[in-house]
Amino acid sequence: MSLRIGVIGVGAMGSSHCRTIARNVSAATLAAVSDADSARAGALAEELGGARVHEDPFELVRDPDVDAVVVASSDDTHMDFVLACLQAEKPVLCEKPLAPTAAASLAVVEAESALGRRLVQVAFMRRYDLGYLGVKERLDAGAIGLPLFVHCAHRNASVPDSYTTEMLFTSSATHEVDVTRWFLGREIVAATVMSPRSTRLGRDGLRDPQFVVLETDDGVLVDVEVFANAQYGYDIRCEVVGETGTLTLPPPADVVLRSEGQDGRRINPDFRARFLPAYRDQLQAWSDAVAAGGPPPGASAWDGYAAAAVIDAGVASLHAGRRKEVALAARPELYAPADERTVAAAT
Amino acid sequence: MSLRIGVIGVGAMGSSHCRTIARNVSAATLAAVSDADSARAGALAEELGGARVHEDPFELVRDPDVDAVVVASSDDTHMDFVLACLQAEKPVLCEKPLAPTAAASLAVVEAESALGRRLVQVAFMRRYDLGYLGVKERLDAGAIGLPLFVHCAHRNASVPDSYTTEMLFTSSATHEVDVTRWFLGREIVAATVMSPRSTRLGRDGLRDPQFVVLETDDGVLVDVEVFANAQYGYDIRCEVVGETGTLTLPPPADVVLRSEGQDGRRINPDFRARFLPAYRDQLQAWSDAVAAGGPPPGASAWDGYAAAAVIDAGVASLHAGRRKEVALAARPELYAPADERTVAAAT
Amino acid sequence: MSLRIGVIGVGAMGSSHCRTIARNVSAATLAAVSDADSARAGALAEELGGARVHEDPFELVRDPDVDAVVVASSDDTHMDFVLACLQAEKPVLCEKPLAPTAAASLAVVEAESALGRRLVQVAFMRRYDLGYLGVKERLDAGAIGLPLFVHCAHRNASVPDSYTTEMLFTSSATHEVDVTRWFLGREIVAATVMSPRSTRLGRDGLRDPQFVVLETDDGVLVDVEVFANAQYGYDIRCEVVGETGTLTLPPPADVVLRSEGQDGRRINPDFRARFLPAYRDQLQAWSDAVAAGGPPPGASAWDGYAAAAVIDAGVASLHAGRRKEVALAARPELYAPADERTVAAAT
Amino acid sequence: MSLRIGVIGVGAMGSSHCRTIARNVSAATLAAVSDADSARAGALAEELGGARVHEDPFELVRDPDVDAVVVASSDDTHMDFVLACLQAEKPVLCEKPLAPTAAASLAVVEAESALGRRLVQVAFMRRYDLGYLGVKERLDAGAIGLPLFVHCAHRNASVPDSYTTEMLFTSSATHEVDVTRWFLGREIVAATVMSPRSTRLGRDGLRDPQFVVLETDDGVLVDVEVFANAQYGYDIRCEVVGETGTLTLPPPADVVLRSEGQDGRRINPDFRARFLPAYRDQLQAWSDAVAAGGPPPGASAWDGYAAAAVIDAGVASLHAGRRKEVALAARPELYAPADERTVAAAT
Repeated sequence: MSLRIGVIGVGAMGSSHCRTIARNVSAATLAAVSDADSARAGALAEELGGARVHEDPFELVRDPDVDAVVVASSDDTHMDFVLACLQAEKPVLCEKPLAPTAAASLAVVEAESALGRRLVQVAFMRRYDLGYLGVKERLDAGAIGLPLFVHCAHRNASVPDSYTTEMLFTSSATHEVDVTRWFLGREIVAATVMSPRSTRLGRDGLRDPQFVVLETDDGVLVDVEVFANAQYGYDIRCEVVGETGTLTLPPPADVVLRSEGQDGRRINPDFRARFLPAYRDQLQAWSDAVAAGGPPPGASAWDGYAAAAVIDAGVASLHAGRRKEVALAARPELYAPADERTVAAAT
Repeated sequence: MSLRIGVIGVGAMGSSHCRTIARNVSAATLAAVSDADSARAGALAEELGGARVHEDPFELVRDPDVDAVVVASSDDTHMDFVLACLQAEKPVLCEKPLAPTAAASLAVVEAESALGRRLVQVAFMRRYDLGYLGVKERLDAGAIGLPLFVHCAHRNASVPDSYTTEMLFTSSATHEVDVTRWFLGREIVAATVMSPRSTRLGRDGLRDPQFVVLETDDGVLVDVEVFANAQYGYDIRCEVVGETGTLTLPPPADVVLRSEGQDGRRINPDFRARFLPAYRDQLQAWSDAVAAGGPPPGASAWDGYAAAAVIDAGVASLHAGRRKEVALAARPELYAPADERTVAAAT
Repeated sequence: MSLRIGVIGVGAMGSSHCRTIARNVSAATLAAVSDADSARAGALAEELGGARVHEDPFELVRDPDVDAVVVASSDDTHMDFVLACLQAEKPVLCEKPLAPTAAASLAVVEAESALGRRLVQVAFMRRYDLGYLGVKERLDAGAIGLPLFVHCAHRNASVPDSYTTEMLFTSSATHEVDVTRWFLGREIVAATVMSPRSTRLGRDGLRDPQFVVLETDDGVLVDVEVFANAQYGYDIRCEVVGETGTLTLPPPADVVLRSEGQDGRRINPDFRARFLPAYRDQLQAWSDAVAAGGPPPGASAWDGYAAAAVIDAGVASLHAGRRKEVALAARPELYAPADERTVAAAT
Repeated sequence: MSLRIGVIGVGAMGSSHCRTIARNVSAATLAAVSDADSARAGALAEELGGARVHEDPFELVRDPDVDAVVVASSDDTHMDFVLACLQAEKPVLCEKPLAPTAAASLAVVEAESALGRRLVQVAFMRRYDLGYLGVKERLDAGAIGLPLFVHCAHRNASVPDSYTTEMLFTSSATHEVDVTRWFLGREIVAATVMSPRSTRLGRDGLRDPQFVVLETDDGVLVDVEVFANAQYGYDIRCEVVGETGTLTLPPPADVVLRSEGQDGRRINPDFRARFLPAYRDQLQAWSDAVAAGGPPPGASAWDGYAAAAVIDAGVASLHAGRRKEVALAARPELYAPADERTVAAAT
C-alpha cells in the first residue's frame, strides 16, 4: 500500500520534492499537487504521470485520496496549510519556517499539542545527511566525551537580490540551530551576533557575512559563520569539540583530480546538490513512519518553534549589537523526549 | 504502476536485494521469492509484507504476476535461471557470474542474441557507485586526456575457508575487469599474474594476495592488487592515469575523529557497507528502465562474458606463471555500443 | 665568520635552542650560556662542545665574544635581559612575552625607539612555519580577495598544574594574536571573551577552554578556541576566509596508516614536535640577518607589545564578561612598515 | 671545527648543494669548487663568500684544505672522482649513478672494500625525506606486519629532449629501487618491465611511461609506474602493503585553497622543490657523520651498485619483453648490516 502524498507549492523546492516522491521514494505516490501558478502545477503533474491538480490548496489537504501533505509554498503561507492539516488530522512535512514568527510557530505547537498527537515534521533535512548522522552517532557513543564547542560555517556561493540581512539568520543559520539542538539534545538560551566588514560582492546594503555565537542551557558554545555570497561554492562545515577529542563533518566524497599543478576536489555549487541524498532519505523516512501510523520521525513543531525563537534572539542581537537571551515558552508534554515521557508515565 | 519483481535466492545477497526492493526502490514491488530453503524464503516474504513464495524457482520465472527477475542464488545455478528468463522474455538482473565458465557465459550471450533483444543485466554494481561514476564522467569529459594506466587495489578484510585462490580472480578481480572495460570502452586482450609471498593470516594453502596486470586492445595497462585477507578492512582503490593528469576514486566520506593522538576515519568492514548506495541505485535504475520497456541500463550479458574470458586468462596465467592472451569470441551486433549501431543503421 | 650566540636560560626551551644553534644552524656558534642553575648550564655547554658558562647572565650580555643573545629564561626575567642587550647594542631574540605586562613591554619599545635602531626580535616562531608562510604568501597574492574572518583553534594535549586561566591568553592565544596581525598587517582593536563550561579533565578551578573574538581596525573578525587540556594532542588550526575563497593551514604531513578498520594519521603530542622546523628556520633566519648587520627579520618589540596589549584586553574581557577595547600606544616611527617609511622619507 | 667540503660540478644540482652547504648546514664550510666551466665555478665561489676554485677537479680532491668531497659533475665522470677520493682516503658524497654501468659500480665497491673502510655515500636523498622516514619507522615498528607489496609512482612534469627511454630506469626508477631495498632490507632478484602505449606529449620515439615489477629475494612484489612527461607536476607516490595494514607516503603538506568551486592543494613542479628539506638533511647528516670520523650514514657504494644491477635487469627486460633476473655479485663483508657484522665478530 502506497502512501498518497499531496504537495503544496511546486517551485524549485516543491517540484524537487515531487520528483523525488514520484521517482525515488518506495511505497509512496505523488497523488496531488497545488500551486499559486496552476499551469505550473499542471505541467508538473503531467510530467510525473498524472497527479491530481487542486486549484485550492485547502482542498488538497481535505482530498480523501491524499494521506499526507508536503508544504513547500512561499514561507508566509506555511502556517495556514499546517493548521489545515492538523484540522484534517493528516501528517504534514513542512519546509522551514513553520510560521513567519516564533510567536506564530508557537501557535502551531499549541494547536498540535491541543490535538494531543504529533502530525507535524519540519523539513530540517540535515538530520538525514550521512555526515551529520555519523557525527551524531559517534557523539552519542561518547567518542569525544562531553561536548564543549560546536564550530560551524554555512556558506552559499551567492544569493538573489531579494535576500535580506535577516535571512542570513532565518534562512541559513536556522539549520545550524536545529543541528546543534539535535546533536546536543539541549535548548539554546542566548545569542550574540558580531558583524565583520561586509563583502563587496553582495548587493548594496546587505550585511554579509555574520558571526553568531549561541549558548546552550548547559554551557556549550556554538559559533556559526554565515556567509551568503562566499563565491567559491556551497560549503557547510561543522566540528564538535569535546573533552577528549573532536568530530568533524566531512565534505561529500569527490573524485580527486590531479591536473595542472593542482590536487583538487570539486565543491558543490548549491544546497540541493550538497544535500540531495538527505532530501531523499528525509522523504523516505517520513513516508515510512507516517504510513505506519507513527509520529513523524524528524524535527517536530517544537523544534521548529525553538529554532525560530533562537533566530529571533539572533536578529535582535544583530540590531542591538549585544547578547540577547532566547525567550522560550514552556515545552508541552507532547514534545518531551521519549525517555522523559516514559519516566512521567511510570511515576 | 509498480514493477513486480521476483527474487531467486534469498541468502545474504538476495535477502538484501529483497529488503531494498521492498523498502527503498520507487515504483517496484517484491512480488515473489524462491529459495532452496523454502522456510527461509517464507520468513522473508512474511517480514516484507507478503510476497508469494515459489517452491520451484522456474515457476517464479513463469509467474504472470512477476514482471522481472533478480537472480541471487548460488553461483552455479545462475545460468539456468537466466536462460529461463530469456525463454519467458522477462528482464533479469543476475548476480555475477553469469555462468560457471566463460564458455557457458557465451552460451547465454548467444541465446540472448538469438532472441534479438537485450533482457539480461549482470549486477556489476560499481557502475552505480557515485565515486566510480565521478571518475567515469570526468574521464569521458577529457579531464586527464587519453588514459594510460589504471591502478587498482581490491582488499577484503577476510574471507571464509571456502574461498579458493581462483576466487581471488572470479569473485574479486572480476569487478576491476568490468570497471576497467566500462571506464575505457575497450576490450582486455591479455593478463599476467604475479604472486608475491602469501600472507600467513589466510587459511593454509590459499595463495593470497595476487597481482594482476591486464592489457587493453589499445595499450592501456591495468594493474590490480587482489588481497582477500587484508585484515584492516574492505578497501577499494582506483586511480586512472592519463596523458595530462590522474583521477582517483575517493574513499566514502566519513566523519573525522581526532582522539588519542590520532586523526582518523573508519574503513568499511565489508563490501555491503561500502557499496550500499550503489546496490540501491542499481536496483532503482534497472527497475525504472525495464519498467519502461527499455533494455537494461547496466552491464550486459556480453560484459559478463567478456569479464569471464579475462578472468579465465588470469587464472591460466596464475597456473602457467606467464602472460596469457584472452580468447574472446566475436561480439554479436546486439551488443555494439549505441554509436556504432547508429552508424551501422545509417549505412 | 660564524655569529657567536649566547643563550640565557637553558630549561626545556633554552636547551632546545642551544642544541639547534650548535647542530643545525649554519654560520652560527653557541658561544656562551647562562642559567640560574649553573650546573645545568655547565652540563649543556660540555655536551655541546664547550661554550663558555656565565654565572651572571648580564656578563654574558657584555661578553665581547658574544655577538648576539637569545633570551629563554623564566618569563618575568625577559625584560631586564632585553634592556641589557639594548644597552650593549647587541641583537636579541627573546622568547615571548617580551615583558610581564603590556606597559612594561611598551617600556622596551620606547628604549629601543630611543636607541633609534631595531635590535629586538620576539620569538613568534609561527612566522617561520611553512604552513603559515604558505597561507601568508597566497593571502598576499590575492588568492581569496579581501579577508573577512580568521578562524583559529589552539589546543594543547595538557598543561602542568602551574598553568592558570590567564595563561590560556598570555601563553597560548598570544600566538594567534601575532599570526593574525602578521597575516593581515592590521592592529586588533577589541576583544570579547566567552567561556563555555570547563572540561572536567583540567585541574580544579581552571576555566578551560575559552573562546576569544578579536576585531581588527578594518573590521576583520578573528575567533580563537583556546583549549589547554584537549587530551588528544597538540593541534593548531587556522582558516582565513576572504571575499572569494578560503585558505586553510594544513596539519603537518604524516604517513597514513590503514590498520584495524581505521585510516589514520598521528597528531603531534606537543608544540615542540609540531614546530620543530619553524624553530630551526627562525634561528637560521635571525642569525643570518643580524650577522649581516641588518634588523631582525621577525616579530619586533612593537609586535610583542601589541600582542600583549591585545591579550590584556582579552583578560579584562574574561573578568568583565563583556567586550573590551585594546588600549594601544602610538606606534613609534621605528616600527613603521617599510613602505610607509619610504613614503615618509620621500616626503 | 667546521668540515671543509669541496664540490666537483656546479651545474643545477651541484650549485644547489654549494648553496645549501654555505647557508644551511651547521659546522660545514664550502671550501672549494671545481667545474668544467671554470667561470661558472668562479662566479659561484664569489657569490658564496670565497671558496677556492680548482681548475683540475683531482687537485680539489687532493687539496689538504678539503676534508670531504661532493661529486655532482656529469654522470659519466662520477666514478673517476670517487676512486680519486678513495685513493686520497677522503669521504665522498656522490650523486647517483656511482658509475656508468653496474660493472663499473662494482669496481668502486671492490676498491672501497680493498681499502677496508667505508668512505662513499651515494646521494639517494629520499632516505632523508620525513615522509619516507615515517614509513620506514612504522614499518620497522611492525605497524603493518610483514610487507607483501610496495606500490610506487614516479612522475615528472616533463623532461628535456636529451632524456632517453633508458633514463626512465637509470635516472628515475633507480630511486624506487633504492627506497625499496632500504625499506625492506632485502635484495631485488628480478625485474619485469611492461610498456603501455606512450604518451603523445613526450618527444618522438620516447617510450614513456613504463611499468616495472620487481621481486625481492623473500617474495615481496614492488611495482613502479615511471612517467617522465606526466604534465601535471612532480608527484611521488608510495604505499607499502603488509599482512595487517598499509602505510602510505603523504604528499608534502600544502595550504588548502578553496576557490572557484574547487578545494585544492598545489603539487610540486619538480624534484628539487619536492625534496628540498631532504637534500639539506642529507648534507647535514653526512657532514656530521664524516666530521666525527664515522662511516657515511646513507646509501653505500654497495647500495649504489645493487641499484645499478637491478636497473640493468630492468633495461634488459624492457628490450627483451620478458622477466629478467638480477645478476648480483657477492656482497663484501664491508657492507654487511651492523647486526650481521656483530654476529661475525662475536663468532
